[in-house]
Amino acid sequence: MAIVVQKYGGSSVANAERIQRVAGRVVECARKGKHVVVVVSARGDTTDDLISLAREITNEPPKREMDMLLATGEQISIALLAMAIDKLGHPVISLTGPQAGISTDAVHTKARIQDINTRRIRDELAGGKIVIVAGFQGATTEGEITTLGRGGSDTTAVALAAALDAEVCEIYTDVDGVYTTDPRIEPQACKLDSISYDEMLELASLGAQVLHPRSVEYGKQYGVPIHVRSSFNHNRGTMVQEVDKMEKVMMVSGIAYDLNVAKIALYDVPDKPGIAFQLFEQLAKESINVDMIIQSSMRDERNDISFTVGKDDLNRAVAVVQKVREEIGGTGISYDEKVAKVSIVGAGMVSNPGVAASMFGALAQEGINIQMISTSEIKVSCIISSSQVQQAVRALHKTFDLAAVPNVQQRIG
Amino acid sequence: MAIVVQKYGGSSVANAERIQRVAGRVVECARKGKHVVVVVSARGDTTDDLISLAREITNEPPKREMDMLLATGEQISIALLAMAIDKLGHPVISLTGPQAGISTDAVHTKARIQDINTRRIRDELAGGKIVIVAGFQGATTEGEITTLGRGGSDTTAVALAAALDAEVCEIYTDVDGVYTTDPRIEPQACKLDSISYDEMLELASLGAQVLHPRSVEYGKQYGVPIHVRSSFNHNRGTMVQEVDKMEKVMMVSGIAYDLNVAKIALYDVPDKPGIAFQLFEQLAKESINVDMIIQSSMRDERNDISFTVGKDDLNRAVAVVQKVREEIGGTGISYDEKVAKVSIVGAGMVSNPGVAASMFGALAQEGINIQMISTSEIKVSCIISSSQVQQAVRALHKTFDLAAVPNVQQRIG
Repeated sequence: MAIVVQKYGGSSVANAERIQRVAGRVVECARKGKHVVVVVSARGDTTDDLISLAREITNEPPKREMDMLLATGEQISIALLAMAIDKLGHPVISLTGPQAGISTDAVHTKARIQDINTRRIRDELAGGKIVIVAGFQGATTEGEITTLGRGGSDTTAVALAAALDAEVCEIYTDVDGVYTTDPRIEPQACKLDSISYDEMLELASLGAQVLHPRSVEYGKQYGVPIHVRSSFNHNRGTMVQEVDKMEKVMMVSGIAYDLNVAKIALYDVPDKPGIAFQLFEQLAKESINVDMIIQSSMRDERNDISFTVGKDDLNRAVAVVQKVREEIGGTGISYDEKVAKVSIVGAGMVSNPGVAASMFGALAQEGINIQMISTSEIKVSCIISSSQVQQAVRALHKTFDLAAVPNVQQRIG
Repeated sequence: MAIVVQKYGGSSVANAERIQRVAGRVVECARKGKHVVVVVSARGDTTDDLISLAREITNEPPKREMDMLLATGEQISIALLAMAIDKLGHPVISLTGPQAGISTDAVHTKARIQDINTRRIRDELAGGKIVIVAGFQGATTEGEITTLGRGGSDTTAVALAAALDAEVCEIYTDVDGVYTTDPRIEPQACKLDSISYDEMLELASLGAQVLHPRSVEYGKQYGVPIHVRSSFNHNRGTMVQEVDKMEKVMMVSGIAYDLNVAKIALYDVPDKPGIAFQLFEQLAKESINVDMIIQSSMRDERNDISFTVGKDDLNRAVAVVQKVREEIGGTGISYDEKVAKVSIVGAGMVSNPGVAASMFGALAQEGINIQMISTSEIKVSCIISSSQVQQAVRALHKTFDLAAVPNVQQRIG
C-alpha cells in the first residue's frame, strides 16, 4: 500500500477545532487506502511561549536543556491529534521523534538527522494504524533529546517520506502554496503550480517561509515530490519536484525576503592567506551559520570582511569576531541588525545576463541603497535597510512582471 | 559522598522567580558537599491545563496518548530548573523519567515503577553534576512513555532515594509539614514533628495531600527517611520514619478528609458465592481502584453491595456495574458524587477500643449522618455528605484534642 506523509504546521493545530479538522483530513486520506504518516509541529505559539519561559530564567540557556524544553511542544501536538483521530474511530498511535527512530547528531538546537530506523513506523502502519510523529526532534545514539532548529518539522516530514519511500510528502500550511512573493507585502503575488527543487531551495533559504531549505535538500537528494498546500481547502497547491528542461527556462520565478539577518563587518585585517579561514572556522566551531560573505580590498595590504548571520546568532558571532580580531588584528568591528535580504530567484537567470542589472536598477530607482550583493546561478540577493523591504519587494515583483503570470509552466523564457 | 533526593511540587516551580529560588536551595545543598538528585513536578496548573486540552478534543482520550501528553509537564519543569541552576554556575543535567532509568509496567496513567537503573544518574553525580529528574513518569521496557498517576512525583522521589540509597528524601511543599488536619479547615491544626510510615500511609491514602501513599509504601519498604518540609523556609518539617514503640502509642495523630470520592450501590444481588468476586474482578480489570466496600444482607438471600471509587473513575465504574448487573441480577444501581470520607488516624488506636465510638459520637452530635464505615488497626473512616466535611473535621479535631499538642512525641497515650 502506498505511503503518504503529511505535515501540518503549528497554525493548523493551534486549537481543538483545527486539530479536529486535521484529524478529519488525515482519516479521509487513510480511508482512501493510503498508509498515512503525519508529522506535526508545536501548536500555534507554543514554541515561542516555551522560549519566553526560558528567557525569564536566563539569557543563555544551555542548548541541551533548550532542546529538552522545546521538544515538549511537538509532543503535546501529537498526543492531541492522536486523540482526535481515535475519536473518529480510526486506529492511531503517536510517536516522539526518538520513538519514531529518528537519530541525529549531537548539535543541540540545530541537530541534523543522521539516520531513520523505520521499523516501528512500518510495524504500526502494517497494524492498520495512522502514525503521528513529532516533528522537529530526534535523539542522539546516547538517547539525548535534540531538536532540528527552525523549520525542523518540514525536514522531519521529507526525511521520513524519503526513508519510507512515500509517494508524496504533503506540506500543509496556512497558504495555498508557493507564491511569486509574500502576498502580505504584494497583493498581486501569484501561486506557482510547480517549482524545481533548486528554485525552491533558493526561495526557502531566502526567507519564503513555506518550506525549510533543509527539507528541500532532502527532497532533491532522494527525489521526494513535495506538495505544498493549504490545510484550509482541497485546492492543488505547489508541487516541488524535478521539472524537465523546457520548464526550467523561466527567468525569475519569485521574490524572497528575509528579515532575520544581521550584518557584521571587521575592518582593516591583514591581507594575507588564512585570515578568512581563521575567522570562519571559529564561527563554524560555534555552529553559527554564516550566509553572505564579502571580502574587499580597500587599501594596500588591508582588507575589510563583511558577512551576515541570523539575528539569533549576532551576539555570539560578535564575540567570536572580537576574539579573532585580537589574534589577527583589525581596526574595528561594526554590526547592524536593521538590515534585510531581498532576492530574486529563477532557473532561467543563468542564461539571461541582464537580470541582475535589472534588479539593481529597480532598487536604485526606488532610492534603495544596496549594502551587499551575492549571486548564484539561479538567484541574486541584496542586503538593504530593513525599513525598505516592502518597497523593494513590490518594485521587483513589478519589474519582473510576476503578477501577470498564472503559473510557472506558462512562463517560458 | 552522601546522596540527598529533593522533590519540589508544582507550586514550588510555578514561575521563574520560584524556580530560581528552588535552584538556589538545590545549589546550597550541593555546596554543603552532598550529591543532589532533584525530582520536580509539572509547574503550577500545567497538568490541569493539559487535561483541559485533551478534554476539548475528546471525553475519553486513549490512556497511552494521555501519558504522552501529560509527560510534557514535568519535562518543561526539569529543563527550566536545570537552566536556573546552570545560571548559578553549578554543573547540572536534566533527565526525563525514561532517561533516568525508571522502568514501569504498561498500565498507562497509573503505571507502577518496576525497576530503576541508576547507572546514568550515578555517572552524572560522579561527574559533579546536580541531576534533575522528571517526576511522575517512566517508560515500559518497550520505550512507551507512562505516568504514575496522582502524586506520582512523590513516588519517583522516594523510589529514587531507595534505589540510590540516599540518606534522606526531602519532599518540599507549600506547607511546613504534616498537620493534625487541614489548616485551611481547622486553623488550630498543629504540625507533627514526626510520624510513622503506617500513620502517614493512612493519612496520605485518606486525602492529606502532602505525600502520595505509594511513596510512603516505598519509604516503609526500603526504610527511606522522608522529610516533608516547606520550600518557602528552612524550618524543620515532619519526619516520616519508623519510630520506636514508646512513640507509637499516640491515640489519634491526625484527621484526614478526601473529597475525591464517589459512592456506588448495587441493590438486591443474589446471596451466593462469587458475586463480589465477579464485580470487583471486572472493576480491577478496568484498573479502577475501589476503596471502601460494604456488603450487607438486607433480605433473605439478597444482598446490597456498596463501594467507593475516585470521582474520575465513577462513569467507568458505573458502566462496569451495569454490565455485571445484567449478568448476575440486581434490582438497581445508585451512585452519589456528593460524598466525602473523613478519617481519624493514630497508631495508638488499636489499644484504645473507645476511639471509633468517640468518633461516631462526635459526628452524631453535629447531626452528621454516617453512610459507610471502614476501619483498620490505625484508622477509622466514615463516608458522609460532602457538604458536612468542614464541620466534621473541626468537631473531630476538637474531640481528640489535637490543637493542644505541639508535637507527636509528647502525646504519649
